[in-house]
Amino acid sequence: MRILFHLPLSPFARKVRLALAEKRLPFDLRVERVWERREEFMAVNPAGTVPVLQEANGLFIADSYAICEYLDEAYPDTPLLGRTLGERAEVRRLVAWFDQKFYTEVTRNLVFEKQMKRVLGRGNPDATAIRAGYANLKPHLEYIGWLAETRAWLAGPQMGLADLAAAAQLSALDYIGDVDWSISDAAKDWYARVKSRPSFRPLLGDRVTGVVPPPHYDDLDF
Amino acid sequence: MRILFHLPLSPFARKVRLALAEKRLPFDLRVERVWERREEFMAVNPAGTVPVLQEANGLFIADSYAICEYLDEAYPDTPLLGRTLGERAEVRRLVAWFDQKFYTEVTRNLVFEKQMKRVLGRGNPDATAIRAGYANLKPHLEYIGWLAETRAWLAGPQMGLADLAAAAQLSALDYIGDVDWSISDAAKDWYARVKSRPSFRPLLGDRVTGVVPPPHYDDLDF
Repeated sequence: MRILFHLPLSPFARKVRLALAEKRLPFDLRVERVWERREEFMAVNPAGTVPVLQEANGLFIADSYAICEYLDEAYPDTPLLGRTLGERAEVRRLVAWFDQKFYTEVTRNLVFEKQMKRVLGRGNPDATAIRAGYANLKPHLEYIGWLAETRAWLAGPQMGLADLAAAAQLSALDYIGDVDWSISDAAKDWYARVKSRPSFRPLLGDRVTGVVPPPHYDDLDF
Repeated sequence: MRILFHLPLSPFARKVRLALAEKRLPFDLRVERVWERREEFMAVNPAGTVPVLQEANGLFIADSYAICEYLDEAYPDTPLLGRTLGERAEVRRLVAWFDQKFYTEVTRNLVFEKQMKRVLGRGNPDATAIRAGYANLKPHLEYIGWLAETRAWLAGPQMGLADLAAAAQLSALDYIGDVDWSISDAAKDWYARVKSRPSFRPLLGDRVTGVVPPPHYDDLDF
């Protein structure tokens, strides 16, 4: 069986879970306590990060970028990267936007500071980072809203990896109650559309010990 | 004519320049002063970063990840991502390693702090960041050396995007004289091999106003 090594609040693992589910590829989830630096895990991914995918044939793929590109090459049904070269360039531009810019400016400042630092034993949350995270969320939600109003989905005519990358970041933030959805109705409507897809259901069922999500977290009509 | 919008010390623009040259795709270079936030540039890349590639047919591709994947799809001769799914997964794992982990832990702490902050008007270099950059360079060079001793090239049997991503980061650091090559002979030998490729020559000819590279920078037998 295919195994995905993950952590429940990792936005990058969430992106891969959504991609696997959209492609209807079954997989088992295994929580990897990356802070324990397990020897067999570090051997396949010296970066010590989740997600890592193990295929049934034994192939290990580390890093969410490598995994998502692999999935679209190995399982081309239900393509998630777009059809034309131009569509694919736009999907990948936005995947980089959410994986790197949104993560660094928003998710890292909130999910990492408020939840992961404690787990990893890296000290107390930094109040300046948390303030920056809340401030940065606004322009990002407005950009998502603008994209959603201009196009059928964030990168163009098809639902694809750009939507999954964005929704993965937002769902981790939403779990800890840190998304002010009143900032953009268009972003909220787009998120409700992604959230109501069958691929999203397992994420909404996840619970992290000691952290209770807000009531709207798994409400499809929030 | 194809145009690459770049900055001379951007490791991500350097990676794309090497990829274009390895594929023998001609291009003109245009310096983009990203801190001026030129309106036409922000319209094609709202992240405001280099590199951005403009194809002769007018297609714009923003972000070095999107550009490199595009180049291998649009111009499959001289593939840079590997042949089998397993090889491609390893190339991409290492590209992510150098683009994200190496950049964040080393290049950002040195090239960004010492050179770009001044240009961008973002204040003085942070001495703590610079110390961290030097400290982090050692394990990274040792890892490169270990890969180079274990395989023909960093990701496997063929020279590819992993080598270009690593060499791009190191060449920007080497320009400002910040690579202690005595740390790893194997890493130094691998870099000398990459550096002597024709694709590297234009990078070695670049000069940045006010910053003189060390004598070994463009010496192929350093």
